Amino acid sequence: MKFGIIGSGSWATALAKILTDNNHSINWWIRNTDTIDHITLRKHNPHYLNAAYFDNTLLNMSSSLPYIIEESDVLIVAVPSAYIHDTFSILNTDALDGKKVVSAIKGILPDRNLLLNEYLEQTFNFNIRDYFAVLGPCHAEEVAAEKLSYLTFSGIDEDKAKDIASHFKTGYLNTVLNHDIMGVQYAAILKNIYAMGAGIAHGLEYGDNFLSVYIANSADEMVRFLRKARLDDEKEVINYAASAYLGDLLVTCYSLYSRNRTFGNMIGKGYSVKVAQLELSMVAEGYNASKCVHKKSRDLQVALPIADIIYGILWEHLPVAEGFNKIEKLLV
Amino acid sequence: MKFGIIGSGSWATALAKILTDNNHSINWWIRNTDTIDHITLRKHNPHYLNAAYFDNTLLNMSSSLPYIIEESDVLIVAVPSAYIHDTFSILNTDALDGKKVVSAIKGILPDRNLLLNEYLEQTFNFNIRDYFAVLGPCHAEEVAAEKLSYLTFSGIDEDKAKDIASHFKTGYLNTVLNHDIMGVQYAAILKNIYAMGAGIAHGLEYGDNFLSVYIANSADEMVRFLRKARLDDEKEVINYAASAYLGDLLVTCYSLYSRNRTFGNMIGKGYSVKVAQLELSMVAEGYNASKCVHKKSRDLQVALPIADIIYGILWEHLPVAEGFNKIEKLLV
Repeated sequence: MKFGIIGSGSWATALAKILTDNNHSINWWIRNTDTIDHITLRKHNPHYLNAAYFDNTLLNMSSSLPYIIEESDVLIVAVPSAYIHDTFSILNTDALDGKKVVSAIKGILPDRNLLLNEYLEQTFNFNIRDYFAVLGPCHAEEVAAEKLSYLTFSGIDEDKAKDIASHFKTGYLNTVLNHDIMGVQYAAILKNIYAMGAGIAHGLEYGDNFLSVYIANSADEMVRFLRKARLDDEKEVINYAASAYLGDLLVTCYSLYSRNRTFGNMIGKGYSVKVAQLELSMVAEGYNASKCVHKKSRDLQVALPIADIIYGILWEHLPVAEGFNKIEKLLV
Repeated sequence: MKFGIIGSGSWATALAKILTDNNHSINWWIRNTDTIDHITLRKHNPHYLNAAYFDNTLLNMSSSLPYIIEESDVLIVAVPSAYIHDTFSILNTDALDGKKVVSAIKGILPDRNLLLNEYLEQTFNFNIRDYFAVLGPCHAEEVAAEKLSYLTFSGIDEDKAKDIASHFKTGYLNTVLNHDIMGVQYAAILKNIYAMGAGIAHGLEYGDNFLSVYIANSADEMVRFLRKARLDDEKEVINYAASAYLGDLLVTCYSLYSRNRTFGNMIGKGYSVKVAQLELSMVAEGYNASKCVHKKSRDLQVALPIADIIYGILWEHLPVAEGFNKIEKLLV
């Protein structure tokens, strides 16, 4: 099984580290040839997780996406969701024939309001049975530091998911299997919205007591959405307290590594969305997610009062204090 | 409705502050007459929350428990569970006739392995319909600082619970109603055990990713126990993500105010139980709770593998690293 990693951000770099730590040769698509040159010369990514060093004999890096796809059986997609279309639009519709795709993105294609599998199904000859997602509370910084983490591999075809997962298990990484492929992806998206809210609450100087009530109620709201977003109508009970659901929500809301929380904190302190984005030189995934989920929740007919207020703050000029006064009244 | 507060620790002091902030006159049993003298003279409790000042005209303090009970309609019990029997054993069996009792303790009577209502029913003419519990993620320090917090009032008689709750609602305190009286009490007990585990994990230098997975799995384990501990067989769905359940677990596991977490952290760093207790000059409620719950889970026939390992570490000399190696394998 030959893996190709698409992207070179912090999460892509962490996944490259895990596979090469397991002595896998990997193909690696990196857009910027300067980055490739740096890794070739210095054995680490200069921009992300630069303390993680690679055995270069295991790396086949290229800025040509068709070449990397050609060389790989399993493509791990780890570019920000906002750049998915730009990245993939150069490919022919048969480019993914015979390939498996593992989504490592934690967002939704913003203008299209599509999950990666939905986009691939519309754009390529691609079947969801070849689609997998890797998720979990897994801040890349802790993977780089080899702190024990858990990754969940989700797919409709559980045997294939198990096979893929087996290549990631290392001394610092445990793997979990799941086949709620829509649910885990939406959990990864929703948690960023709630984490922004946690950051806003922190910026507004609410305390630990409030934050815990806010996050607990957010968990409940998230699960209400996930029950509606399931692909199957099976009665099988999903454990929403597992790491890919509640675990990921908790780390994103509480960890100081969380960029969405940091972004929210600036909003809570009174920065505008624009200034917060410039200051952090990034778009927090939760920002676009709040708009996409706002629409999607209407399609699914599920009420998300907390997420709607975060959306109002970020997109519709709802004053933060007013928004949180409303949230206060919702919590139980 | 005349309230009597029994105890003068940090939580008792916070509850006295809330009621007097609402301009209620209260009766207050304080064992130590020096403390009464200090509050009389200086208007604050010298030992706990000493930044909270009282309007002394609203306080009727006494070291005589029979007198305070006599003067009150509703008794709020806020002494550590380990001292309940010593405190109440001086009373006649009719001492609680016509009284309502609100438990503000977050533990179990250690040698007897009883919740407060069970102890009162055995010891006095007391009916569980006169029993209520006040719970929630409510670190006393944040109440003192008037940070918005949520208190849950639970009782079988929801009208009475509502009436009692109405006296606590202030600008910095929202109230929530509940009638799963056994569940909320056990949640308050179990969360201390898991928080000790969170502290141990922190002491062992696990990272944020692991901690979130550990806490999420603990939430699941806690709910399994609570479903079995329900008094009623009603099919009514309980919202286990509410503040009294998941909220309280989160604040206890994550907040630096949490004494159980601090205690666990010392155990994780290699201190013995004895030394950690001496150093913190207190018994963390979770320490006794782990033993009581270990027994109780057998009575209820519910498996608590995480809590059992914490129990093993605290009571049966299971080495911390070995215990957490086992926990690592349980998590999903």
